[in-house]
Amino acid sequence: MKIITISREFGSGGRELGKRLADELGIPCYDHEIIEMIAKENGFDERYVANVSEKSIEAAYPLTIGHRFAMPPLQIMDQPIRVAAAQRQIIENFAKQSDCVIVGRCADVILEDMKPLNLFVYADMPSRLQRCKDRAPEGENLTDTELMRMIRQIDKQRLQHHQMYSDMKWGAKEAYHLCVNTSGKEIKSLIPALAAYVRAWFEA
Amino acid sequence: MKIITISREFGSGGRELGKRLADELGIPCYDHEIIEMIAKENGFDERYVANVSEKSIEAAYPLTIGHRFAMPPLQIMDQPIRVAAAQRQIIENFAKQSDCVIVGRCADVILEDMKPLNLFVYADMPSRLQRCKDRAPEGENLTDTELMRMIRQIDKQRLQHHQMYSDMKWGAKEAYHLCVNTSGKEIKSLIPALAAYVRAWFEA
Repeated sequence: MKIITISREFGSGGRELGKRLADELGIPCYDHEIIEMIAKENGFDERYVANVSEKSIEAAYPLTIGHRFAMPPLQIMDQPIRVAAAQRQIIENFAKQSDCVIVGRCADVILEDMKPLNLFVYADMPSRLQRCKDRAPEGENLTDTELMRMIRQIDKQRLQHHQMYSDMKWGAKEAYHLCVNTSGKEIKSLIPALAAYVRAWFEA
Repeated sequence: MKIITISREFGSGGRELGKRLADELGIPCYDHEIIEMIAKENGFDERYVANVSEKSIEAAYPLTIGHRFAMPPLQIMDQPIRVAAAQRQIIENFAKQSDCVIVGRCADVILEDMKPLNLFVYADMPSRLQRCKDRAPEGENLTDTELMRMIRQIDKQRLQHHQMYSDMKWGAKEAYHLCVNTSGKEIKSLIPALAAYVRAWFEA
């Protein structure tokens, strides 16, 4: 079984890299699909799941309250844990079905026993800013400072979320088999060689 | 100009990877050659240069004294600086001559202006121990604890040496374009894909 997990800094192009790598390898890539399934199976709003699914349980609370769920405190506390459990289940099911690429959501830790190839994708701040601007929704006009704050905040949440699952530090190279710096590079052009590396790694 | 620098944890196979990658790309690899040239041009002992060339100036002193150079203090202090200057000059000359792979010796920092591809090679401790044992000279019978101490000590020296040249921390992924974890893998089998990645990276 060839499972490739992608962990990525926000704005580094990790999601694009995951999709393209999966296409090149002819296997499915799971990313937002995971959120959709959790939301559907648990009757949650997708935006809520997206928020909770890569945050620490602590960080998730104010959001839940912010979204005005009219629930007793115990149930509010229970929700992020249910999301985490559903996420684990769905990721394990995807991985058992076939070779695949899974983006984010601590799949590297969740699937540890299946010996996945864990990729980390990162880039310098100018590249990440540029990527965020290129992909910004119509009408979003954040300044560089605001964008940088958002990038750092999201990465901080990913780090905290990862700590719930593992002693290994999110982003520490020791936790990954290959770390790819995409700064100033067109991701598309790196894909054939990366796919070759993945194939060689599983055979080596 | 395609310059590839290899930084590596001790025992990770970085030197082997550098040599094989250079062979695959059909370009020269400079490693021990740098030490030989410094030694020859400056009338130093090769072992002395090897010791000094990847250590911090501070760490190099006791060794100099340990080797009983009969010199006044000022000249002793002067030597590691002369080695560092010679090293810089030789590395720059190699890089200007042709595409090449350069292993260690802060070539990533020294050649920054030439926009090299900086590779970092690392591995987990069990793999590094095994590699050290496989390559130990006849009659060397260090225990695992002794080997681990040596591995950590050498990496610490590389880190300190790097600090003389750069604000970037040795081994921090941000300083490299690709970080390759060789744990449990035969390096030879990863080379064609790595060479493809190098070619793509310079064209991307």
